[in-house]
Amino acid sequence: MIYADYNATAPVAEEVKQYLLERLDGPFANPNALHGLGQNISHAMEQCRNICADALDCYPEQIIFTSGASESISQVLFSTLAFARKNNSILTSSLEHAALKNGINFYAKKFNIDINQLAINSGGKALNFEIESPQLLATLIAAHNETGVIQDYLAFAQKMDEMQTPYLCDTTQLIGKCPFSFKKSNVDYAVVSSHKLGSLPGVGILIAKNPETLSPIIFGGGQEKSLRGGTQNYLAIECLGLVMSKLEKRVESFSKLESLKLNFEENLTSQIPGLQIIGAKEQRLSNTTLLAIPAIHGQAIQIELESHDIFVTTSSACSDNEPEISESLKAMGIEDDLGRGVIRLSFGEKTTQDDFNFINNAIIKAYQKLAIIKH
Amino acid sequence: MIYADYNATAPVAEEVKQYLLERLDGPFANPNALHGLGQNISHAMEQCRNICADALDCYPEQIIFTSGASESISQVLFSTLAFARKNNSILTSSLEHAALKNGINFYAKKFNIDINQLAINSGGKALNFEIESPQLLATLIAAHNETGVIQDYLAFAQKMDEMQTPYLCDTTQLIGKCPFSFKKSNVDYAVVSSHKLGSLPGVGILIAKNPETLSPIIFGGGQEKSLRGGTQNYLAIECLGLVMSKLEKRVESFSKLESLKLNFEENLTSQIPGLQIIGAKEQRLSNTTLLAIPAIHGQAIQIELESHDIFVTTSSACSDNEPEISESLKAMGIEDDLGRGVIRLSFGEKTTQDDFNFINNAIIKAYQKLAIIKH
Repeated sequence: MIYADYNATAPVAEEVKQYLLERLDGPFANPNALHGLGQNISHAMEQCRNICADALDCYPEQIIFTSGASESISQVLFSTLAFARKNNSILTSSLEHAALKNGINFYAKKFNIDINQLAINSGGKALNFEIESPQLLATLIAAHNETGVIQDYLAFAQKMDEMQTPYLCDTTQLIGKCPFSFKKSNVDYAVVSSHKLGSLPGVGILIAKNPETLSPIIFGGGQEKSLRGGTQNYLAIECLGLVMSKLEKRVESFSKLESLKLNFEENLTSQIPGLQIIGAKEQRLSNTTLLAIPAIHGQAIQIELESHDIFVTTSSACSDNEPEISESLKAMGIEDDLGRGVIRLSFGEKTTQDDFNFINNAIIKAYQKLAIIKH
Repeated sequence: MIYADYNATAPVAEEVKQYLLERLDGPFANPNALHGLGQNISHAMEQCRNICADALDCYPEQIIFTSGASESISQVLFSTLAFARKNNSILTSSLEHAALKNGINFYAKKFNIDINQLAINSGGKALNFEIESPQLLATLIAAHNETGVIQDYLAFAQKMDEMQTPYLCDTTQLIGKCPFSFKKSNVDYAVVSSHKLGSLPGVGILIAKNPETLSPIIFGGGQEKSLRGGTQNYLAIECLGLVMSKLEKRVESFSKLESLKLNFEENLTSQIPGLQIIGAKEQRLSNTTLLAIPAIHGQAIQIELESHDIFVTTSSACSDNEPEISESLKAMGIEDDLGRGVIRLSFGEKTTQDDFNFINNAIIKAYQKLAIIKH
């Protein structure tokens, strides 16, 4: 089996598995209990917070453990938009993940918030960060989940800071694949998804420059300094700490995919007429390729690849069920005919040169078969 | 070690551990991906939804997987209160868990919502469910986390239904310890916490009679029929399914604690002058004892018990850090002097007669030691 859907989720890492095999012998307790068992678990959790802060270059006090990146994003939207006054506006982009896009649309509709959209070039990169007045919130995804295009989020952060506009940066795909420093980024809010890093699903991080700007969306008994209620998912937090302690190594192993991937893309381009690598001219995540073959449906290719035990997706996992091409691709000016031919391959630290060769051959076979059907 | 803090969290069950030991070999995929791996995981998850629906006696469509009971509660509060108009009122009780209480206070303050409180008797039971007009929302915890007192939630549900008032019933402590049928209860919203049932932390259920009355609080790519965004915590959901398939057996084993506990309480009462069992006259959870010894601080007893490797708490885990006695105890008319002497013992399916004897002896020893210090 070749798994090439790391942007949707990364398989649970061997070290996480090994840790859990022992950890499941106990002890178990509520980390908020004052007895010794609970306190031990609480201390381990705080140790993990320190490790995460170290890996993300922020203060431990800036880390709130949530159930995942979508919750982290939703909490920032609630905090900044839910009690907004009329006539306020936000700055966002068509490149955002559904969690952010749907959340913004929800609050914008409820509170008549104006949505200003960043302009996007044909490579899927946001341009021109000039704004006339401070906004309620600004968002620009750090690295796009479909194209892998890395945005100028540092320049954007700088600009938003100058304009006194809080910046929520969706760093879900960037962190773990590229170096990231929260302190140096000047971003107001960043997010982490544990399962995208090879740890367990069900936990994530919200990093907030000023946590006091947040409201809880999940209420409880004072957990996470009253910013996130509910018993912490301590087992998954411990696993996240483990993965975070090796984040630098992970980034390094992902960077090694760059040359393998570019070579793979070059080979395919030379073999399939009209094949396009979306966003190829922009700086991209080393692990992501978004291919489009004109007039051949991405799902047909996906199914062909699956018959060779290769698992890819036609876009992000979350919008796989949508019949239309994604809003991000539309904003890039990609026509339906090409956009429907899209398949996303996202590789991981275990992807080898042999895997790339095997996928290359399988795509060529799929193309040959489907091109014949088409004509 | 004797663990007597099951109401805070139940240790991960052996069957969950065994399941995970194999499950962690994979496969892993995003359940929202359209490829075969993702679809297999999605199917397993839907199977778990069916199992949960069966165990809770509701329709699978009424089940939304969340990160836990606190999130489930918070989603109902957001859905019913966040966009409320002025001059609306809600009916609630001083017996509610902090997740609910703090959430209600938050929205009540933001939107000037009037809070009507149910009257409570000295045994910790809510009385008199008459209301004059429909409310935005009514809440009454099914079984109290500290006293274990089981409320007349079925009668309350009936009354609220007549008064066209949606009823959010915090069933966190009841489910798994008492028989529960969502359909028969006539409750509008009920909640489940996985880790209280011996499964993993980080997952829970919101059961909604009419899911279309809900707004998401966590936005995403259409997961859970667009009512709860974010990649589902599928590993924990599978484990929850496993535990839910044996829910009836769990309830049965908890019911066996009743006679052991009553015997234990009787012994203690006869040995410690002035000792009170809070709520003893009311119907209670079979596993819960809330003891109070006048003028002896609960935390002192807790520490003494811990020296015998017995783990109990002074109240709910979430409010262990509060110096004051809990609002619920205050509402019952319990004086500070007695309230500070409170310790909560909550037993589980593994608690034996020997454990009860051992705890009994340890409490007597602690009492003798602390009573001497006091005088």
